[in-house]
Amino acid sequence: MTTRKPLIFGLYEQANIGDGSGAASLWTHPEDRRLTSVKSYDYWLHLAKLADEINLDLLFFGDVLGIYDTYGQSPDTAISWGVELPAHDPLMIIPALAAATRHLAFGATISTSYDHPFAHARRLSTLDHMTGGRIGWNIVTSYLPSAARNFGRDRMVPHDERYAIAEEFLEVSYKLWEGSWADDAFLGDKTACRFADATRVRPIDHRGTHFACAGPHVSFPSPQRTPLLIQAGWSPRGKIFGARHAEVVFVGDNTAGAVRQGVEDIRTLARAEGRDGGDIKALAGAQIVVGATRAEAEDKLADYQRFYAPEASLAAYSGYSGIDMARYQDDEAIDRSSNHTQSAASKAAVLAGDIRQRYARVDGNSGLTFIGSPTEIANQIAAYVDQSGIDGFLLHQFIAPASFEDFARYVVPALQARGLYRTEAQTGTLRARLRADGADRLPDNHPAARFRWR
Amino acid sequence: MTTRKPLIFGLYEQANIGDGSGAASLWTHPEDRRLTSVKSYDYWLHLAKLADEINLDLLFFGDVLGIYDTYGQSPDTAISWGVELPAHDPLMIIPALAAATRHLAFGATISTSYDHPFAHARRLSTLDHMTGGRIGWNIVTSYLPSAARNFGRDRMVPHDERYAIAEEFLEVSYKLWEGSWADDAFLGDKTACRFADATRVRPIDHRGTHFACAGPHVSFPSPQRTPLLIQAGWSPRGKIFGARHAEVVFVGDNTAGAVRQGVEDIRTLARAEGRDGGDIKALAGAQIVVGATRAEAEDKLADYQRFYAPEASLAAYSGYSGIDMARYQDDEAIDRSSNHTQSAASKAAVLAGDIRQRYARVDGNSGLTFIGSPTEIANQIAAYVDQSGIDGFLLHQFIAPASFEDFARYVVPALQARGLYRTEAQTGTLRARLRADGADRLPDNHPAARFRWR
Repeated sequence: MTTRKPLIFGLYEQANIGDGSGAASLWTHPEDRRLTSVKSYDYWLHLAKLADEINLDLLFFGDVLGIYDTYGQSPDTAISWGVELPAHDPLMIIPALAAATRHLAFGATISTSYDHPFAHARRLSTLDHMTGGRIGWNIVTSYLPSAARNFGRDRMVPHDERYAIAEEFLEVSYKLWEGSWADDAFLGDKTACRFADATRVRPIDHRGTHFACAGPHVSFPSPQRTPLLIQAGWSPRGKIFGARHAEVVFVGDNTAGAVRQGVEDIRTLARAEGRDGGDIKALAGAQIVVGATRAEAEDKLADYQRFYAPEASLAAYSGYSGIDMARYQDDEAIDRSSNHTQSAASKAAVLAGDIRQRYARVDGNSGLTFIGSPTEIANQIAAYVDQSGIDGFLLHQFIAPASFEDFARYVVPALQARGLYRTEAQTGTLRARLRADGADRLPDNHPAARFRWR
Repeated sequence: MTTRKPLIFGLYEQANIGDGSGAASLWTHPEDRRLTSVKSYDYWLHLAKLADEINLDLLFFGDVLGIYDTYGQSPDTAISWGVELPAHDPLMIIPALAAATRHLAFGATISTSYDHPFAHARRLSTLDHMTGGRIGWNIVTSYLPSAARNFGRDRMVPHDERYAIAEEFLEVSYKLWEGSWADDAFLGDKTACRFADATRVRPIDHRGTHFACAGPHVSFPSPQRTPLLIQAGWSPRGKIFGARHAEVVFVGDNTAGAVRQGVEDIRTLARAEGRDGGDIKALAGAQIVVGATRAEAEDKLADYQRFYAPEASLAAYSGYSGIDMARYQDDEAIDRSSNHTQSAASKAAVLAGDIRQRYARVDGNSGLTFIGSPTEIANQIAAYVDQSGIDGFLLHQFIAPASFEDFARYVVPALQARGLYRTEAQTGTLRARLRADGADRLPDNHPAARFRWR
């Protein structure tokens, strides 16, 4: 057994009863506690404290801003099953968990499409200060037409224009975070009676196509200034965006080889932008079902299957793909041209029946399910990492929080025995933990750096 | 000594180093810990846990969205002294404190001028669920031109138009909170596999002058649905707005008699709107300096005075009044026509020197400072309540958290001895605690009620 570097492990969550894992109906399982998670902080505090204990790298929150109403052209299935509902605001939960943990870092999904970057920058600067830099921002552009309508837009902004807006949203954010307060602006000097050096604070005076913002930023530089940047887009445009800005990308494709190719594409694009490809960490979504033996794990999965409703997952799939699965017969080819979450290759024609067959299984949505005894799972994980070249995983739970408790209890020791899971708490900022150079701030070759005060 | 009903006590805070008390420079006092409060949750957790222990009614957060740059037409004084800086987002702090306390309720200042009501309604529904209804919203329209510029507006929206926008912002919020999900829509039934009854959830389809929002709301009804509504405007337009919507108003004027008259005005206006005047609770801002004897308290105030810088407080005054105090000689009359925070009567001509004289003292900004031994303070408070007819106080701290610790240790027992401070924890929603009928939801005669699903 060779000594390996610990992998990065994050836990995917969403402040709803279905967590967006694709098995949207598993909240009905008797052991599942998601129904309590939307009514109090208790579930979340339990989860975060356990994550802190096992030195998990990241507790990540996905988010949506509207109800999934593509399936059957109606929100009824989503409302009835609670698919991605309620869509509670993860930023009203993360501070509670940050204050209750010592080392755990958090990822927050925040859209660039419906907020003003000034309010956003202030929010994340506050969080970065309060958490000592334990915060990452998952940049999304929002794909739901229902979200657009909630914000008063009659039509969805086209995919590529959403990315143009996102670019400008980032520019304003970078100006506020990186360029408004010089490194030596903050003094905090009681004796000299000086909070800050006003000559080292400046407005940003941004006037662009989509946003205007005068500044100065209302917060002094936080530990990371710009929070760690995360991105999940796997479309061609999404990959370019991720290659330019992201420090962590979420990857997913049908095979480990396709994942390896996709990650290499992103790193090649990043180098073309003048960045270091190694500055981008790639995490794959995965689900784990662990038992004392493989048979026991398979029994667990069979038990989950009993509480699995394909209709709920098809409503979820319809929502995020934009394809109304309710209108296709099994033998019809579906039009995937609107599906922005997939790579170009996976937009090839496919029969509706194939999708339905996939979603007939509780683990059908996940590209990656590891199942078996703790040792078997550690072996599977090691093999997948070798094949795909990824840096770690973002775990989804079938049953919450039992799936994560199982991971903590059974899988972490098996991974640690192989050197694949860290054995000590990480301190410092989230960025410093992930970067080879241990820096708190973005490197000079990142596009944010050009807005700095020289 | 007659038996009295306990008064309502709240603590005013702001996520900056000066708390907005008007004595903006007291963070330089050796005992003050505000400088630590902008870098971690520790200060806030200590404060909130103490507030929870003593059964305080409300931990309230003020907020601003720009730097105070009226004084000398420059942000330099505000930046140098840290006047209302940093302007951290209180909503990134309140969840941390809510999760760490059992009974304490929170008030959050949120402007209606720069956000979309859908994002806002989702945020507060999440908080109301997570806290079991321990949340209030202080509705403000934002008075800072610098805030307007941060959100890309070249000019400040005129005062009365800001209130028109606020009215529509509230209408959209009410539609989402009160009208989108029927009382029986949420099921949460694992056995029946039903999260909610889709026939009891409806869009709001709002298309107004300032906002559009389709809905449905993405959250099921929270304990209060609409969070407790707080309002602080003392201008003629502000009083009308408060009379229509508010359940708690903050009052302040030169004399107890003027406060009594102002509160009566608001309650008369409320009755004209069909509301019950008693449904509006009035709290006055106040500061307390307590010692074993009056002499000891006066020594404390004299000590605070040594760390008090009038310039910082004049910069604060200039910011919230819109009057640039730097441009007036002492013998010049100042133009207070732009001062929207005052009642019409107090807009009478005044010399700049009079303002400066007032702000020469550490307690100059507060309309109300109670000073003395614990018993003397309890007497002063009782007398003020008798004269003004208010329901309670919103306390500001000179030294944080020492002023609040003094209040907890010395003043609370003295008030309890007179029946003026509660002796038991309050449970249930914030609204239920304040209303005579103990209801969690707004009454039928509140303007929000007309958006309900009958």
